[in-house]
Amino acid sequence: MGSEELDDDVETPLVHSTSDSHLEDHFLRIRRSAPVTTSQLAIIGSSLCPIESLDYELIENDFFKQDWRSRGEAHIVRYVILKWTLCFLVGALSGAVGFFNNLAVQNIAGVKFVVTSNMMLAGKYKWAFLVFATTNFVLLMFASVITTYISPAAAGSGIPEVMAYLNGVDAPDIFSLKTFFVKVVGCIAAVSSSLHVGKAGPMIHTSACIASILGQGGSRKYRLTCKWLRYFKNDRDRRDLVTCGAGAGVAAAFRAPVGGVLFALECVSSWWRSALLWRAFFTTAVVVVVLRALIDVCNSGKCGLFGKGGLIMFDVTSADVTYHLDDLPPVIVLGIIGGILGSSYNFLLDKVLRIYNLINEKGHVCKLFLAASVSIFTSCCLFGMPWLASCKPCPAESSEACPSIGRSGNFKKFQCPPDQYNDLASLFFNTNDDTIRNLYSAGTDNVFQKTSVILFLITSYFLGIISYGLAVPSGLFVPVILTGATYGRLVGMLMGSHSTLNHGLFAVLGSASLLGGSMRMTVSVCVVMLELTNNLLLLPLVMLVLLISKSVADAFNANVYDLLVQLKGLPYLKAHAEPFMRQLTVADVVRGPLQIFNGVEKVSNIVHVLKTTGHHGFPVVDEPPFSNSPVLFGLILRANLLTTPVVGILTRHDFMPELILGLHPVLLQSRWKKTRVGKSNLIQLFSDLCRFQK
Amino acid sequence: MGSEELDDDVETPLVHSTSDSHLEDHFLRIRRSAPVTTSQLAIIGSSLCPIESLDYELIENDFFKQDWRSRGEAHIVRYVILKWTLCFLVGALSGAVGFFNNLAVQNIAGVKFVVTSNMMLAGKYKWAFLVFATTNFVLLMFASVITTYISPAAAGSGIPEVMAYLNGVDAPDIFSLKTFFVKVVGCIAAVSSSLHVGKAGPMIHTSACIASILGQGGSRKYRLTCKWLRYFKNDRDRRDLVTCGAGAGVAAAFRAPVGGVLFALECVSSWWRSALLWRAFFTTAVVVVVLRALIDVCNSGKCGLFGKGGLIMFDVTSADVTYHLDDLPPVIVLGIIGGILGSSYNFLLDKVLRIYNLINEKGHVCKLFLAASVSIFTSCCLFGMPWLASCKPCPAESSEACPSIGRSGNFKKFQCPPDQYNDLASLFFNTNDDTIRNLYSAGTDNVFQKTSVILFLITSYFLGIISYGLAVPSGLFVPVILTGATYGRLVGMLMGSHSTLNHGLFAVLGSASLLGGSMRMTVSVCVVMLELTNNLLLLPLVMLVLLISKSVADAFNANVYDLLVQLKGLPYLKAHAEPFMRQLTVADVVRGPLQIFNGVEKVSNIVHVLKTTGHHGFPVVDEPPFSNSPVLFGLILRANLLTTPVVGILTRHDFMPELILGLHPVLLQSRWKKTRVGKSNLIQLFSDLCRFQK
Repeated sequence: MGSEELDDDVETPLVHSTSDSHLEDHFLRIRRSAPVTTSQLAIIGSSLCPIESLDYELIENDFFKQDWRSRGEAHIVRYVILKWTLCFLVGALSGAVGFFNNLAVQNIAGVKFVVTSNMMLAGKYKWAFLVFATTNFVLLMFASVITTYISPAAAGSGIPEVMAYLNGVDAPDIFSLKTFFVKVVGCIAAVSSSLHVGKAGPMIHTSACIASILGQGGSRKYRLTCKWLRYFKNDRDRRDLVTCGAGAGVAAAFRAPVGGVLFALECVSSWWRSALLWRAFFTTAVVVVVLRALIDVCNSGKCGLFGKGGLIMFDVTSADVTYHLDDLPPVIVLGIIGGILGSSYNFLLDKVLRIYNLINEKGHVCKLFLAASVSIFTSCCLFGMPWLASCKPCPAESSEACPSIGRSGNFKKFQCPPDQYNDLASLFFNTNDDTIRNLYSAGTDNVFQKTSVILFLITSYFLGIISYGLAVPSGLFVPVILTGATYGRLVGMLMGSHSTLNHGLFAVLGSASLLGGSMRMTVSVCVVMLELTNNLLLLPLVMLVLLISKSVADAFNANVYDLLVQLKGLPYLKAHAEPFMRQLTVADVVRGPLQIFNGVEKVSNIVHVLKTTGHHGFPVVDEPPFSNSPVLFGLILRANLLTTPVVGILTRHDFMPELILGLHPVLLQSRWKKTRVGKSNLIQLFSDLCRFQK
Repeated sequence: MGSEELDDDVETPLVHSTSDSHLEDHFLRIRRSAPVTTSQLAIIGSSLCPIESLDYELIENDFFKQDWRSRGEAHIVRYVILKWTLCFLVGALSGAVGFFNNLAVQNIAGVKFVVTSNMMLAGKYKWAFLVFATTNFVLLMFASVITTYISPAAAGSGIPEVMAYLNGVDAPDIFSLKTFFVKVVGCIAAVSSSLHVGKAGPMIHTSACIASILGQGGSRKYRLTCKWLRYFKNDRDRRDLVTCGAGAGVAAAFRAPVGGVLFALECVSSWWRSALLWRAFFTTAVVVVVLRALIDVCNSGKCGLFGKGGLIMFDVTSADVTYHLDDLPPVIVLGIIGGILGSSYNFLLDKVLRIYNLINEKGHVCKLFLAASVSIFTSCCLFGMPWLASCKPCPAESSEACPSIGRSGNFKKFQCPPDQYNDLASLFFNTNDDTIRNLYSAGTDNVFQKTSVILFLITSYFLGIISYGLAVPSGLFVPVILTGATYGRLVGMLMGSHSTLNHGLFAVLGSASLLGGSMRMTVSVCVVMLELTNNLLLLPLVMLVLLISKSVADAFNANVYDLLVQLKGLPYLKAHAEPFMRQLTVADVVRGPLQIFNGVEKVSNIVHVLKTTGHHGFPVVDEPPFSNSPVLFGLILRANLLTTPVVGILTRHDFMPELILGLHPVLLQSRWKKTRVGKSNLIQLFSDLCRFQK
């Protein structure tokens, strides 16, 4: 493979040439404007320049076909092996990272709760609050500082970025190595700090990062690329891998492999190939096998406070799930109100984020200040609210210890005298996962008081809204599931004896209704809920609730991810075109004036046009002196003109402005052959001949 | 809406005109050649003429856009309501038909088994065999006769036809009302006759029929169309509805709504829109709610032998599903051998079907004779094989009665003395559903003998292969699940104490491996298996088995549906193009010589060309006397020229051969406006301007 070596050789002058700093300047200036952050922060009104669109498919032009024909069996086998190996690696790494994430959160937050609980048992309430609030503050500030200063793109859930990428919008820095590390560490810190955020969204982004980084073969910046990966240097294969990564993320976050595949499918609504289903399935299968193996290790008790968690997060299997047609009306009502709550959640989140964006735009200190305020407020809520609840005597016969010992359990003692428990404390003073488990558990219909549940519902609803827009990695799924579960419990309590369903099942349905009302990803949410709760008998009811809540919420506003994508300013095309778009033609949306290149063009002209226009593509046309009638050869993209081989050639010849550069395929082919640039670059150069000038 | 009335008016002459029988002849001759059956039978080498391709999307030409703009809000709302109402109806009807199907089979087959069992208890073995074999024979002949003489398209599973339709291949008669009735009744008779076939495939075809018929608004032949439905008269909307129907069929057959959605997705591999996911989900949700309600009715004991069946068909939930890394090797081996068994199943099925086709081609009597032979052979096997097993003493402590009373249960007495049971009889002498349930049940590790399981495995494997190609509605899913379950049991037994998994779980994994090896629809099969067995904890193992068995089997041959589609001669495009196809251009595959129409063309010319060529489309070109330079207006399809408005116009003018027909849009537009033909027809007429001449 001699051409590769030459290939590297050609690249070298561009990157390291210091002989002509003037020239360097040229290319730096025409290369890219300063990257804008694509995080939740500071987006409205910012320049969209650095965002590029991705190809949906390989473009089968003559060069591609020729290259394809010239590849031997060995190349194709290598490509297939590579594809599956990468999927396997994405799955295995996602599973491992997901497990590590859970383990870290459970241990950090667990130690915090154990220490404060012990202090409270000893009556040192003020000290307990101080330790609790300080730990939360430190953890959150750590997350916020690394996010703000190292990788602003890691803020927020990351699902909007993944969705945008999978639908053809490539924003800079969203899948970089920096983002990956900040996302993992920041997410652990933020969730451990009892902020009302989840770890599912960041997990999905993390897995997509893993996929993207592996697809690049490490970071090109740190010169960690691998020669085998050159077949992966096209948009389609890389996007496929990121799709599998997104699925793996869901699988790792919720231990829900089928839900993961469906999530990937619902994300990549605009382009789906059957081969992808099969590969995504493979990836999530790997995730779940890895998770299962790691959990097996924990069963021997080596994972500290992580405990013996099984593969099902909230196991609500109860043998006696019975429901009849009489149970339909309350379930329908639950769905309708859930839809309304979900859409108002989206509405309020949108408003709050706009305010936060104004604050965050003011600078790094403001970002940190905002995060600090929310952390202190959250600590006050979590510690203060339980004091409002009256103590309840422990139930006479209960399988659990009352008051609970250690970290989890339904019967927190908090400030109560012995043999009594504080029902609000077991909701507030707990990790989100444990609270959800408490709410989902069956046979606990009398554990919670109505006022406690109402208080927690309101607090959780608004805490979820104000916690999202901070400069920390933060997911939306878990807060919505938690709030929904509380809402479902409340409905169950209000139904009282009118329904045969137990309150735990109502909580599951409540979660589904709020997810349906906010996220609107019905099929994947449905499957994820089933896989979370291991209860297939509930399926008809969950489907019904989701259908109703989505339909109701769709009448009010868009789904939460569409809102976030819009706030971030990513040019994401929706599944349904607006009616006015039917009237638009290409001429209505392109920017003029049109710049045309001849088939054989002077380098100085090219550089001049690149510097003076912002166009993304230029038609290549041969006009009469060179041909009989005007011939359109196709479109050459700015990105292609700025790829290394072209720039390499320019620098080689010491940038002679009078050098002519053959732009049309035949000329280029012979030219490249002389300089022996790698074929893959050639293909990349011409792979975009069918796009429009923007 | 005066235009509709005129529209009908225009249609009338064509269908009922008896004034000019010569003219009728003309159109009948050019309309369609005699429909070929698309059933399993008599396909190889037959003419492919009547098969047409479907449009994947609406074609947005000027006429369509104009019509779209002219539609008011009310029209659009009506369209949306219609779309969802139709989905609802498809779901509700599929659920009801699926339930009815099950009910009928359980009762007919149940009575048969109860009567014969009672005779055997009384020692009248010969009479029992006579009653058993005669009932089977009569039922199967009934199914075979109605299939052969009323609707040959109803033979076989129907999934290949549905797959072909969803991927753009429209064969005549596959979704007609006749086919629907024959499929439902024939399937009940065939399955009740103890033939080794399933009811899942026919159920999917049935639901697709329901969808297609509803989309047409009843049968056009019987003049049952509805005016509201004219917006549905395009390929895309109808195909969407059939997609939902296919999903509903799976949901109804296996009570697996999510599996249904995924099945529809895996079928429609070539074109999928996100809106479809949501609508398919709605449809399957309706199915499952209807099923649940109907099963609720049965719980009061009004369904005869159907019993109190729940929503989960084979509930294998056991609280103690534990497995560790040590269990992986046997599971991997199970997957590999399952893949080999599955691919050899496909191979043998293909060979047997080719032989059957030769027999079936010889005429109706041969078809019936073949069915009769297989029925008698099957009866002999089912009744004869259990005699080979030795009787086993009843287990000392068992929750079940031993020997079993009535129809189901693991401990059939058969010919054994009291307090003993025949383990082979409970496999052979049972409905397939009950046998599967027996094999899946946990805590039955010592019920079956190794030799019994081996005997049943071999018999079931080959019975499944020889039972499929008969002229009766017959599914492949259930035989494969059953054979796989037996295979899994056997592996479990061979493992003995080396594995902690119980034999019931091995049976589930065995089914998955054989399904993966034969059908290769991994994701939907995985979810269907989960929904059938209500055991999410098994998910990692099921995924692993499916991945392995599919990969292994893919190395040998194509999936069973691809083989069937190929045998039927349907021009179904595979997901992956063959390598040589990359070199082909359109010119290599079209049939010449090219026939061109002018923009304004003589009717006699059109009729002449239609009669003398078999082309499916003709370019419309205006040449110099009529325009400055040759202008291509587009392509007009044979189907469009044969649509009612055009033919109507021709007959109106009493077929004057010198009449000129304006073929290019502008001329046509003014012409139609004068005769006030409905706009929808006009759109249909020009909706296909971008296809190629075949």
